Amino acid sequence: MKLDHFLLAVREKHPLVHHITNWVTIYDCAQIVKSLGASPVMAHASEEADAMTTLGSALVLNIGTLTSDLIASMKRSIEAAKHKRIPVVLDVCGAGATVFRDRVCAELLDTNGVTVIKGNASEIARVAGLSVATRGVDTGHVREDLVAVAKGLAKTRNAVVVVTGERDIVATADTAYLVANGHPIMAKVVGTGCMANSVIGTFVGASPENPALAAAAGLAAYEIAAEQAAALCPTPMAFKHALFDCLYALTVEDLATRNQVTVAA
Amino acid sequence: MKLDHFLLAVREKHPLVHHITNWVTIYDCAQIVKSLGASPVMAHASEEADAMTTLGSALVLNIGTLTSDLIASMKRSIEAAKHKRIPVVLDVCGAGATVFRDRVCAELLDTNGVTVIKGNASEIARVAGLSVATRGVDTGHVREDLVAVAKGLAKTRNAVVVVTGERDIVATADTAYLVANGHPIMAKVVGTGCMANSVIGTFVGASPENPALAAAAGLAAYEIAAEQAAALCPTPMAFKHALFDCLYALTVEDLATRNQVTVAA
Amino acid sequence: MKLDHFLLAVREKHPLVHHITNWVTIYDCAQIVKSLGASPVMAHASEEADAMTTLGSALVLNIGTLTSDLIASMKRSIEAAKHKRIPVVLDVCGAGATVFRDRVCAELLDTNGVTVIKGNASEIARVAGLSVATRGVDTGHVREDLVAVAKGLAKTRNAVVVVTGERDIVATADTAYLVANGHPIMAKVVGTGCMANSVIGTFVGASPENPALAAAAGLAAYEIAAEQAAALCPTPMAFKHALFDCLYALTVEDLATRNQVTVAA
Repeated sequence: MKLDHFLLAVREKHPLVHHITNWVTIYDCAQIVKSLGASPVMAHASEEADAMTTLGSALVLNIGTLTSDLIASMKRSIEAAKHKRIPVVLDVCGAGATVFRDRVCAELLDTNGVTVIKGNASEIARVAGLSVATRGVDTGHVREDLVAVAKGLAKTRNAVVVVTGERDIVATADTAYLVANGHPIMAKVVGTGCMANSVIGTFVGASPENPALAAAAGLAAYEIAAEQAAALCPTPMAFKHALFDCLYALTVEDLATRNQVTVAA
Repeated sequence: MKLDHFLLAVREKHPLVHHITNWVTIYDCAQIVKSLGASPVMAHASEEADAMTTLGSALVLNIGTLTSDLIASMKRSIEAAKHKRIPVVLDVCGAGATVFRDRVCAELLDTNGVTVIKGNASEIARVAGLSVATRGVDTGHVREDLVAVAKGLAKTRNAVVVVTGERDIVATADTAYLVANGHPIMAKVVGTGCMANSVIGTFVGASPENPALAAAAGLAAYEIAAEQAAALCPTPMAFKHALFDCLYALTVEDLATRNQVTVAA
Repeated sequence: MKLDHFLLAVREKHPLVHHITNWVTIYDCAQIVKSLGASPVMAHASEEADAMTTLGSALVLNIGTLTSDLIASMKRSIEAAKHKRIPVVLDVCGAGATVFRDRVCAELLDTNGVTVIKGNASEIARVAGLSVATRGVDTGHVREDLVAVAKGLAKTRNAVVVVTGERDIVATADTAYLVANGHPIMAKVVGTGCMANSVIGTFVGASPENPALAAAAGLAAYEIAAEQAAALCPTPMAFKHALFDCLYALTVEDLATRNQVTVAA
């Protein structure tokens, strides 16, 4: 699929991408945005939540280490973003693990200010209200169902829904893209999912007029860089560091020729 | 000493290891657990402290950047762990530095829910109530005394006591193991102590029936990987990254043939 | 300029450098201090703010991810440092971005306890009360003006003022040093500015009798290591890791022969 212009937009616009994110991978999220030529900001005081948000081209949220303070800042930031039509990307990290986490996800989505909801199969299933056991959801067998789940959630929440996995799904109510790039070693490294969310925020911030395809392009760019990094460095930590530098060096041609983005049947 | 089965248990059971830990090395703690094939979780909201703890096979605590919020969550988590018989590993990071820190250590230990107390010589001496100057405690001269201190604290607190150093001590009230693996370059890297605590939590989580020997096996595995990493990369940051990948690649044979774990005389 | 003794002082005194800093680069700040042979401490609970501060040879503050809790601890720590004549280094990270951030900067400086104020050109301009648009301030054209701005702020705040950029400025009310070392790749890596602040704190902690020249020496040492690292590793993440190890291996001769520190005309 032709996706070059999304990477060009990131590199030409250098979007400022504001984050309220978890403590574990906060550095990696900042550096992956910088590796794309964009500018990360991370701040979470409620006193400056709206001011900082409105300086940015996108707002990236991640509930990995959520606390009540962070949630309050996230809500204020979402309201500010809505008012200025700044896209908001939410990683529903750990949805389903605790009742508290599920409640926070619902509250953030109930703001109607989230542009992209991103999670793995079990997290998205949970956010979509499915009560099925989540282990094994991300298999070939139920993959087709998962596209339907993603589209349904996209419709309900009026948002783009991203389901990461062997093949990522990027769904609107009507259309779903599949992104088949990536490498299994990504699962051996803490933070690859959080960084994917920051990459999506960066691409959507640079191309807010088409968040679904921008998200798919971002995932493809990131995962092509992962393929290149895994070819250079086959062990997890060495791979991780190469991933940053491969994304930094990724060319428009790489994205044009190596992306495996298709429209789901 | 024959320790293979402890590494096999980690790799077969993939324990979920929940952390409430410091902000400095939180990423490294997560990634070292993942490098072992286990699953790290880091979360600290009091609202989900018990729920998240009871999902895990072990609870890892570290007071490096303690605040009153974190302490409250740690206490709730310890209670939840006690109730479900989930082992709790506490790094008494910085004990002795401030009165506040000493008070928090005492409060956490007074819960009677800590399975493994881990620190360096001066920290353990402080937790044991010794008022001796701590500089120089970790020398050959007082090493024998330190075994007695560790055993005494193990008896008082009904816990396994780990004293890290050139030779680590892993003590119960009756027995002490010495772990002579490791490399001096570990002291040049921020976080090697915190990661050791997470490794102990992972091994104890996989083999809760024998926390002392599981802790010794974990330390040996981690420090054999450190020996291998130091041989490959003799500078601190390069060593650190190699440490993750050497631990990832560590074989059961490596642990069986290279461990220098003995019973203290 | 002859600066060897400042590096020697760091390596002989191993200063303990206490930090209250941001969550993004907290690990890197700790490790860069350790790479110099000094001892980092990071803690931010208000209950131990003064006790921890007075154990140290310097206090390093960074407002990157400031919250009201952190600000309270910073103020308590500054008071403790003033009382014990411990130098305080403040990175006014993000000054000018929000009203909240500007207010906090002013409050921290109004304590009259800050020894070194450090920022990039636009941040320092903002702290100095200039209302000029900050974009483009750090250009050759206004560089001379910037020296005057730095000297003026140094006089007003009775502090050393460090302005980082292609050529760093280290100004007292009367004198300004220029540090022309460094490499453009530093701007591609999140945290190089925060680490510079920690390096300054380490050098000033070891040589508190001459904070301006100690700061210049620290910047030169760090940026010579960056030149060496960039020569070895031309991609951002590989460069970053080499930077730690080059600073670790930096010799007194490197600093003596390669520093480009001059007195501003």
